[in-house]
Amino acid sequence: MRGLLRYRRDDVAAILDSTRAGETDDGVPVVGTVEEALPLEPTAALVGVVTQGGRFPPAWMELLRACIERGLDVENGLHVFLADDPELLKLAAERGVELRDLRRPPAGLSTATGENLGVDATIVLTVGSDCAIGKMTVSLELDLGARRRGLRSVFVPTGQTGIAIAGWGIAVDAVVADFVAGAAERLVVEGRERGGELLWVEGQGSLLHPVYSGVALGLYHGSVPHLLVLCHEPGRTEIEGAGGGPHQIPPLRELVELHERLALPARPARVAAVALNTRALGEDEAHAAVAAAEEETGLPADDPVRFGATKLVDAVLAAAP
Amino acid sequence: MRGLLRYRRDDVAAILDSTRAGETDDGVPVVGTVEEALPLEPTAALVGVVTQGGRFPPAWMELLRACIERGLDVENGLHVFLADDPELLKLAAERGVELRDLRRPPAGLSTATGENLGVDATIVLTVGSDCAIGKMTVSLELDLGARRRGLRSVFVPTGQTGIAIAGWGIAVDAVVADFVAGAAERLVVEGRERGGELLWVEGQGSLLHPVYSGVALGLYHGSVPHLLVLCHEPGRTEIEGAGGGPHQIPPLRELVELHERLALPARPARVAAVALNTRALGEDEAHAAVAAAEEETGLPADDPVRFGATKLVDAVLAAAP
Repeated sequence: MRGLLRYRRDDVAAILDSTRAGETDDGVPVVGTVEEALPLEPTAALVGVVTQGGRFPPAWMELLRACIERGLDVENGLHVFLADDPELLKLAAERGVELRDLRRPPAGLSTATGENLGVDATIVLTVGSDCAIGKMTVSLELDLGARRRGLRSVFVPTGQTGIAIAGWGIAVDAVVADFVAGAAERLVVEGRERGGELLWVEGQGSLLHPVYSGVALGLYHGSVPHLLVLCHEPGRTEIEGAGGGPHQIPPLRELVELHERLALPARPARVAAVALNTRALGEDEAHAAVAAAEEETGLPADDPVRFGATKLVDAVLAAAP
Repeated sequence: MRGLLRYRRDDVAAILDSTRAGETDDGVPVVGTVEEALPLEPTAALVGVVTQGGRFPPAWMELLRACIERGLDVENGLHVFLADDPELLKLAAERGVELRDLRRPPAGLSTATGENLGVDATIVLTVGSDCAIGKMTVSLELDLGARRRGLRSVFVPTGQTGIAIAGWGIAVDAVVADFVAGAAERLVVEGRERGGELLWVEGQGSLLHPVYSGVALGLYHGSVPHLLVLCHEPGRTEIEGAGGGPHQIPPLRELVELHERLALPARPARVAAVALNTRALGEDEAHAAVAAAEEETGLPADDPVRFGATKLVDAVLAAAP
């Protein structure tokens, strides 16, 4: 949950990580136990671990009990829900704290209806060559850049970290599979209702990811974007963390074409720009990677975290219908 | 649930449909009430209605109670589960009958692991230009044709009707979205364990369907097919039943290419043949449609229901790795 540190820095009292206790991280103190964090007056504990499939590690139960007993609300982004555990639920009721399962689907979800195509806003979805490549961050940065220009821009959260940051949204990977597009539809409708004329939909998964491609395509078709921003980490050539591989990542130019071909005929989407995650590169290498991506795709490219959002926001506005 | 009538004809005692009571359908008597069906000695009632999103029509509750009170087990293929209704559950316990929710995901599902790529069988997935176009039927017919040749062939059910017919399987559209590929993986592993050296995986959805594309792609990548059979209904030019459209269906040749391009690089899949659903056509038109599909795609084509499975089974075996 680096995203929370980056986008809600002032709300983070401490990081609990017994392997780094005593250090600081981005100015935030790292503690080894819940007890040590209490003088910093936290009000909630956020489960920051991510496991593939979202299962809850049993060793964490002790820690969760400790948080609840000390009066902290608990926010959890895994597929396993805290509030489904009778023991935790009872303990939380006794202590008067709230268990917030960020991935729990809202009531009444169903299949997409076509209402998405009537949303009167420009919809921009981040897509990626892999998972965990910076799609959420790019959406947040471009939203921030657009709002700084005075545009009526809204970030549309589709995953647990985005929800923790923005305070609303649906984790589309946790809904019944038939309802992924329906959940995405509901989110763009709500983004418009929240005043957005420019909606930055947080992307999920990747179209050629052996594990998460279904969510990626359902979100794509359900959010009916006009424009896509393709996210990539230069130097990454294989999907990470998927079994049975290697799973090669195709060249950027092929990814651009593949994404455009998979748009619904009723809502043709174009890739407006390429967003690169150059955190592992030196300054010169980063500039070279941006130039190479532009050369390969013929599209504007940049690293909005490193070099600012201006160029990519410009590219999206220039391409907007 | 026409499929059940076709593939488990001998097990169907009666069809309950008050609008057609007194008629027969494919030799099966149609009755207007549960009472009228009882002399035919049914043991179970199958909920044959399909609603988009799978919601349970309230008007059906009365009928379900009537079935349970008369001692029938109930099988239900909707996204809403009978066994989640306390009243029905209590009634079923009192009468000693079973409520079988065909779409309820099995316990312990998670994300795909890569075990699918190690399955020692030829895997064939049916894909389609739309939903409800005959993918399940094609998989069943080709499996039957292969078994008649003495091949160790297994039909792999991925939806509620396939499960009702074959007695095993997972409704992949009803699992947590992150687990679609994981569910498909589990199914091909189980298909091999059931002795299959040739696995016919029942397709779901369609890659350009605005509602169900996510399930289609997750099933595709999770079942890691070597070969695809592309199913289409000649004359259908638009996705049916999806809001916000029209949603055009691309030409067959483009669909072939799109499906092959979306294969995982770790398991390149080829379209081996085209299966046409010609039920709405006359005999001459059907032959002409088959010839036109072959001309357009350069692939063997046929209607396996109308003209037999031989040609398509031949095509798949010829293309098998």
